[in-house]
Amino acid sequence: MTDGTDQQLPTNWGRWGEDDELGTLNLVTAEVRARGVAEAREGEVVPLGRAVTPAPTARGPFGPDGPRSSAVQQALLYTGTPPMGMAETLVLTPHDPSLTHLDAVAHIPVDGMVYPGRPLAECVDPGGVRHGSTAAFGDGVVTKGVLLDLAPGDRLPPAHGITGTDLDAAAERGGVTVLPGDAVVLRGGWTFAWDAEEPTPGLTLDAVAWLHRHDVALLAGDVGDAFPPLEGEMPMPLHLVGLARLGLPLVDGASVEDLAAVCGRLSRSSFMLVVAPPRIHGATGLPVNPLAVF
Amino acid sequence: MTDGTDQQLPTNWGRWGEDDELGTLNLVTAEVRARGVAEAREGEVVPLGRAVTPAPTARGPFGPDGPRSSAVQQALLYTGTPPMGMAETLVLTPHDPSLTHLDAVAHIPVDGMVYPGRPLAECVDPGGVRHGSTAAFGDGVVTKGVLLDLAPGDRLPPAHGITGTDLDAAAERGGVTVLPGDAVVLRGGWTFAWDAEEPTPGLTLDAVAWLHRHDVALLAGDVGDAFPPLEGEMPMPLHLVGLARLGLPLVDGASVEDLAAVCGRLSRSSFMLVVAPPRIHGATGLPVNPLAVF
Amino acid sequence: MTDGTDQQLPTNWGRWGEDDELGTLNLVTAEVRARGVAEAREGEVVPLGRAVTPAPTARGPFGPDGPRSSAVQQALLYTGTPPMGMAETLVLTPHDPSLTHLDAVAHIPVDGMVYPGRPLAECVDPGGVRHGSTAAFGDGVVTKGVLLDLAPGDRLPPAHGITGTDLDAAAERGGVTVLPGDAVVLRGGWTFAWDAEEPTPGLTLDAVAWLHRHDVALLAGDVGDAFPPLEGEMPMPLHLVGLARLGLPLVDGASVEDLAAVCGRLSRSSFMLVVAPPRIHGATGLPVNPLAVF
Amino acid sequence: MTDGTDQQLPTNWGRWGEDDELGTLNLVTAEVRARGVAEAREGEVVPLGRAVTPAPTARGPFGPDGPRSSAVQQALLYTGTPPMGMAETLVLTPHDPSLTHLDAVAHIPVDGMVYPGRPLAECVDPGGVRHGSTAAFGDGVVTKGVLLDLAPGDRLPPAHGITGTDLDAAAERGGVTVLPGDAVVLRGGWTFAWDAEEPTPGLTLDAVAWLHRHDVALLAGDVGDAFPPLEGEMPMPLHLVGLARLGLPLVDGASVEDLAAVCGRLSRSSFMLVVAPPRIHGATGLPVNPLAVF
Repeated sequence: MTDGTDQQLPTNWGRWGEDDELGTLNLVTAEVRARGVAEAREGEVVPLGRAVTPAPTARGPFGPDGPRSSAVQQALLYTGTPPMGMAETLVLTPHDPSLTHLDAVAHIPVDGMVYPGRPLAECVDPGGVRHGSTAAFGDGVVTKGVLLDLAPGDRLPPAHGITGTDLDAAAERGGVTVLPGDAVVLRGGWTFAWDAEEPTPGLTLDAVAWLHRHDVALLAGDVGDAFPPLEGEMPMPLHLVGLARLGLPLVDGASVEDLAAVCGRLSRSSFMLVVAPPRIHGATGLPVNPLAVF
Repeated sequence: MTDGTDQQLPTNWGRWGEDDELGTLNLVTAEVRARGVAEAREGEVVPLGRAVTPAPTARGPFGPDGPRSSAVQQALLYTGTPPMGMAETLVLTPHDPSLTHLDAVAHIPVDGMVYPGRPLAECVDPGGVRHGSTAAFGDGVVTKGVLLDLAPGDRLPPAHGITGTDLDAAAERGGVTVLPGDAVVLRGGWTFAWDAEEPTPGLTLDAVAWLHRHDVALLAGDVGDAFPPLEGEMPMPLHLVGLARLGLPLVDGASVEDLAAVCGRLSRSSFMLVVAPPRIHGATGLPVNPLAVF
Repeated sequence: MTDGTDQQLPTNWGRWGEDDELGTLNLVTAEVRARGVAEAREGEVVPLGRAVTPAPTARGPFGPDGPRSSAVQQALLYTGTPPMGMAETLVLTPHDPSLTHLDAVAHIPVDGMVYPGRPLAECVDPGGVRHGSTAAFGDGVVTKGVLLDLAPGDRLPPAHGITGTDLDAAAERGGVTVLPGDAVVLRGGWTFAWDAEEPTPGLTLDAVAWLHRHDVALLAGDVGDAFPPLEGEMPMPLHLVGLARLGLPLVDGASVEDLAAVCGRLSRSSFMLVVAPPRIHGATGLPVNPLAVF
Repeated sequence: MTDGTDQQLPTNWGRWGEDDELGTLNLVTAEVRARGVAEAREGEVVPLGRAVTPAPTARGPFGPDGPRSSAVQQALLYTGTPPMGMAETLVLTPHDPSLTHLDAVAHIPVDGMVYPGRPLAECVDPGGVRHGSTAAFGDGVVTKGVLLDLAPGDRLPPAHGITGTDLDAAAERGGVTVLPGDAVVLRGGWTFAWDAEEPTPGLTLDAVAWLHRHDVALLAGDVGDAFPPLEGEMPMPLHLVGLARLGLPLVDGASVEDLAAVCGRLSRSSFMLVVAPPRIHGATGLPVNPLAVF
């Protein structure tokens, strides 16, 4: 991997102009959204976010009952005696692997550049992100979602390298066709973590190229890039190519077991997917609870 | 206002049991959700969250370019040189009026009790909220939304007390009927703030009783409780009665101008509403970007 | 314990006026300070603060090497590539038992009142502490310090109730006299914690009365109030009486092993003590590294 | 400026070994400390920290009374009703110019290296600072302090470049000799800020060379590096040479008016200086309230 024009790596740099911040969300056209909402019929809703309980910022006598460490910390505020109301200040790091979150394209610069090829120094300064930030998610994402279950009723083997062939097989099993602008939800039967005891499975560059060929608009899953990197494969292709070169927003750390169960019960693997993080601009990622609506 | 059994105040305490945390979200049944998704047809999406740009936690030479004060603060993280990736830690106070957020029922205790009448000390400890927290929002909210525009093309007068009659008139103008389980989005033409130069308009207890009679499941709006309280009226009826006694979740600080424009263009005032804050349990409120889907 | 005028409890409420914020620091007169600086002769310096390593606010790939939980958290800041400089934002809770800190009198209200008897609501509002805060420490504290080693070369038994007799014995062993305005440093051979596996020793009300009789200006130590409270004794007398009624500032969680060693080597138990937390007003406690200067 | 061996820039790289973290604090020997404590006679104490009032983390109805922006933010904690005690979580950025703080040598890498010439990547990782951090301040600093008043009763002209000649003149006026290991406190009559309306005065490289020739151990002052950089001079010589190459710890943003007044009243310009930030390791700077003891 040398620069953004490397012909061997899939890329969308330049496809939607030099100033583009939406990346593959450009593929979610009015027609695509209409196809997405058409998937919502019964009104059954499945959340894809993992539940997180905050740790109190205060340890010791004043904060004994919460977890000692969490992706989110909570300072429950004094508001008078009796309290005028209960409120809190939260401290959170969106990219914590235990917190389901949506990555913005500026999260991963490659070769010193942010999608679609702008120098990092133009895109980010110490005060925040100026290009490629979560501002791109301000309108939310509504499209058709497709579950690709890579290991129905089971989990992928440790350190398994997911290929395009795996994705094709899963689509065929689910009876779904992935169309341009669709969101793909991957199920590998794993819990997203960076410190797992076993080596996790993850996508190969071949699978990322598959996502590119199918013009997938957004990816979510309980598997993503493998930790540690797969032997003999490019490391972190989902982030270094998918996010950084395709401009493909990633929902890291999704919870998909309930989704797989509902898909099984309803005998369908497609749904309306709604992804709407808080409307906070200038960040590189935000916590989110994507909803699959059937 | 003396206690939770006060006959003059509308209440849902006890209606869904002593341990209920969902409040009026109980009204969003499968049938109601199906009615909600039926509103999504064209696939046009309108966000109701206000855009917020974080302030850098660091002031001075290392963080000069952001706002000095914001509802959200961002510490952009050092991750190596060149950076391994861009990431941040965020500090935010969900109930900041400039941040569109969803209130949980534990946000406002009345008479020392949290909805539906449990003593505060059982519901909240220094480590977080144990009953009535944002855990109730883990599945997201999907239902039919109805825009009630109280001042089409204009804004309500300062210090105007919104009544049930006002709500009826707005529904009639919009050609909509509010059914049990629906979400109501109010437009008053104001920007939600606690330090406005003019006295803001707000709901009277009469309007809150209207919401109760219509079994509204969720309320959002650019107006809510008046600051300062309306003369001759109960102060903060939306929070002290709507949230605390009805268990009616409130989206404070919504942005509804774009919604009103789209409703006008499409000549309809109903839509599918999706409200899905991050899946963080144990808090009293969370930032959210509700989406109206047409 | 009923109110601030309870005759059975030692108190300084009213002794230095109704608006006093200094408490027993009033006893550190010019003469007392001169006596303190006279103790500094050789220039040997011993810190009494416990060393704390921050935990990174970010967990996961971007912050793997620090502790997962700490009294202090650090967000190392991005300041450009190459960095303009290294800097951080810190999140800390001063009263964390593992962080040596100085308690302000507003830390512990009793009977709804803050020393010297002002209603809590007058002293504290949601925006911070208005009376009895760390503002009282703005000038630092310089006085004579005296080590009272309660268990030389050993540690106190678990759950031992420290009495005035114990303090007298320690003073006699050390060959020191405690004079009005002196600071007392207690050594019990324990590590200050709230979640120790063994019940910790701690002061009885009798020992607090001793501190009052001797007009001690400041207390530091590796023991303080017992966790859990001592059987048959008033719970937390050091905080509920010493801090709250005497207005005696407390350095919680001091490290005194090095001090005891130096006192042994130099065959003296008195020294100049300098306590100077950051000059941050409006808080109820601040981290500090007190220095004993010989 | 090209690398750490540049012969034109004063440097201490290598002087105390390749692993040194103390920098010029190595000069504070037992003899120097003894000379420092000998300055403390009357017991008069003058703080050099600027008082800072925290801003509440929560804005809006729950935190109306504090400043909107500050170097320190305070989340006053809920601890029960009535409160078990008052406590807070603080969020602070030590290098904020309005917060008197002590810089560690790792704060400013030059040529990709941290004092005394170690590659940045060895010294700092996303989890914190491993070499050259505030751990070096764990024992506190006690030495003789000398006030050099550059503009008695007045202030330096805007954009004035302070030279060695200026420092000599101030020492002569004050009747003091700066000896190896002493701390120098500069008074220029300015308030340390990075966004002042006028261009501030600051040290030239010539003045930094003077500090080096005199083997000054620590520098504090109400002036430091000029903002904007002085015309025709190397920018930021105090940080880029003094801190980074000499390993000279800097107290930025000191308040020295009271000190100048006391020096005038007592007709002496030397004193015992005590600098003891909280004992927090792994940071690049910490808030501190240095005390001058007469």
